[in-house]
Amino acid sequence: MHLPLKFKAAGIAAGIKKNGRKDMAMLVSEVPASAAAVFTVNKMKAAPVIVSRRQCRSGGKMKAVVVNSGNANACTGAAGLKDAESMVEKAAASLGVPPAEVLVCSTGSIGVPLPMDCIMSGIERLADSCSENGLMSAAEAVMTTDTHPKVLAKQLEIDGKQITLTGLAKGAGMIEPHMATMLAFILTDAGCNTSALQSLLEEGVNQSFNRISIDGDQSTNDTVMMLANGAAGNEALDERHPQWSVFAAAVRELMFALAMMIVQDGEGAKKCITVAVRGAASVSDAEKAARAVARSFLVKTGWSGPSSQWGRIMDVLGYCGAAVDPDRVSVAYDDVMAVEKGTVAAGEAALRDVVGKSEFTVTIDLHIGSGHYEIYTCEITEEYVRINQ
Amino acid sequence: MHLPLKFKAAGIAAGIKKNGRKDMAMLVSEVPASAAAVFTVNKMKAAPVIVSRRQCRSGGKMKAVVVNSGNANACTGAAGLKDAESMVEKAAASLGVPPAEVLVCSTGSIGVPLPMDCIMSGIERLADSCSENGLMSAAEAVMTTDTHPKVLAKQLEIDGKQITLTGLAKGAGMIEPHMATMLAFILTDAGCNTSALQSLLEEGVNQSFNRISIDGDQSTNDTVMMLANGAAGNEALDERHPQWSVFAAAVRELMFALAMMIVQDGEGAKKCITVAVRGAASVSDAEKAARAVARSFLVKTGWSGPSSQWGRIMDVLGYCGAAVDPDRVSVAYDDVMAVEKGTVAAGEAALRDVVGKSEFTVTIDLHIGSGHYEIYTCEITEEYVRINQ
Repeated sequence: MHLPLKFKAAGIAAGIKKNGRKDMAMLVSEVPASAAAVFTVNKMKAAPVIVSRRQCRSGGKMKAVVVNSGNANACTGAAGLKDAESMVEKAAASLGVPPAEVLVCSTGSIGVPLPMDCIMSGIERLADSCSENGLMSAAEAVMTTDTHPKVLAKQLEIDGKQITLTGLAKGAGMIEPHMATMLAFILTDAGCNTSALQSLLEEGVNQSFNRISIDGDQSTNDTVMMLANGAAGNEALDERHPQWSVFAAAVRELMFALAMMIVQDGEGAKKCITVAVRGAASVSDAEKAARAVARSFLVKTGWSGPSSQWGRIMDVLGYCGAAVDPDRVSVAYDDVMAVEKGTVAAGEAALRDVVGKSEFTVTIDLHIGSGHYEIYTCEITEEYVRINQ
Repeated sequence: MHLPLKFKAAGIAAGIKKNGRKDMAMLVSEVPASAAAVFTVNKMKAAPVIVSRRQCRSGGKMKAVVVNSGNANACTGAAGLKDAESMVEKAAASLGVPPAEVLVCSTGSIGVPLPMDCIMSGIERLADSCSENGLMSAAEAVMTTDTHPKVLAKQLEIDGKQITLTGLAKGAGMIEPHMATMLAFILTDAGCNTSALQSLLEEGVNQSFNRISIDGDQSTNDTVMMLANGAAGNEALDERHPQWSVFAAAVRELMFALAMMIVQDGEGAKKCITVAVRGAASVSDAEKAARAVARSFLVKTGWSGPSSQWGRIMDVLGYCGAAVDPDRVSVAYDDVMAVEKGTVAAGEAALRDVVGKSEFTVTIDLHIGSGHYEIYTCEITEEYVRINQ
């Protein structure tokens, strides 16, 4: 698990979190990198989202990302915006790069002014301590209620060159499409055309981070960023490159795996549940049904107990807005049929065995059309309530 | 607290609930009563909803309602439909009235066949034990996770005659507009034209039961029924009656008060919270914002702790779909301003005092237009999770 060529990282405790844990990270590319980013669609965009989005719009290459956890710098008005800009300027000055090449992210509590003293001195320390070995420290420093750092790496060959893809992410609560209180960074030493990178990232987000739901709340700070610095020496990738599909598949796989790590670490959760809807009148109907099931308080608290709660799923299907014929619906827990043609099909005992597992799939077949959609979620526990009280 | 003239009621333990608590109720009018009803809009309608809706469509007068708790008779297919019809026929035979004059309701678990032996003998016992003093027993018998029976009565004078309005309701979880796992019955000895009664009931439901949200889940069995038997001797009421507005106001008040009793008894909840949205671009935007706040896992679990969690409200406003200008939003907890023009306005200490109360109002002013909407909700606690596991 290491950084791609010519990337450095660092993570430190700057004093933002009261418990003394790491709370600032920096990711640096020694050479200018093509950058792509996807941000939250929440109208209450946090200051760092506004600033980074503006930076990305220029289309220019990027050299660094500065991140803090423990404070979202959201709903902080004009002062918050100024603080986010100061973070960019300070990071640029400390690294000796133009401010236009620095991005910024924050995650944590909403509505609290950033402690700028800690942050400004933190940025200096980050710039000094960035190294090829800083990946795990950086991953720790972006955590909030995460129980462990989330890092993945992957290698592949393009144009005979070894390419490394390294991803790090955070997120455990306020997780709902589109995205959540989550940050993810994908770094690669592949060379890649910026607009191809942006399309790939957007498409990948729709298949991964936009398909996970922990609690149905969508955050002010969600950001997925990708930097491709070309240090591996391959021909710059775009859709016309003969190995584009290999690269794209690897990026998609990495994003999907990172998204799954977030669900598996859902606040207070111990189960990873796939809700797969098939046979819907349209893809949009399938999505409506899948999202409604993955959002239901009752279904999800039910899954923290021993029962299958298929009746609650039927209830959700009845109000989700998708075309549903009660007499055609089937529901299966892994390969055990719970409901067939709208009525009970299996004994609860067999279903309880499935619900007791740490990973299972609920497949809902509406038997109307061919629309299908999958979403990945977890159960809601008493621990979730305690964490968020 | 008593029944209107010429109404009788009973509640018994028929053996449906394993804990031996009361689980069947009967409401009887000795004379034919005008009947109005509003049912769930969930597409997975329970069998008793299908049967009662069909009965009501005839527009004929009604003499009895038979109810069971502990089993919803939902997702039970053709057999469930036959069971609901058998309940109607058995009640009719036991009371010596035509089957067309009997309604049926069920509430409880989904997907379990009704234990028809218990139910058929229960109906006979109910018919035998109905009395003028049976109101409280009937109210107890419709309870599921309710912590207490919900009964209200009101008196008023129409045409110089004393009119009694008596309401009973159940509901504590799976509570979300439109309606929820809730049943409510309003009985009156006023004479009232059926179509006027139906309009009044529908309008009242929109202002009361459709504005409460406990967990965002809408049930398969929701039913509000009203019977008006005319035993008080007033001129039959309709919109042209000089005292229609007096009667209508009394019915609306009773329905609103019953709805508030349901929120106050929300599963595991100790607080009753009004979410009032003002200044929205339209009423529909105000409703979107109010419902989204009242549905947010994070906001509601937050309210079970000490903090105001206004940041989470801002977050919800950003994704709820209503037109929102982050720099104009204000949020107040009772009379303490939390947010003004999108940024923090009050110290958290003053807000914590409000959130510590068992009843408070969160007023959100979007400062865009004049649309407003209110919704009534509660916090989500660890106890809620335990109840629904």
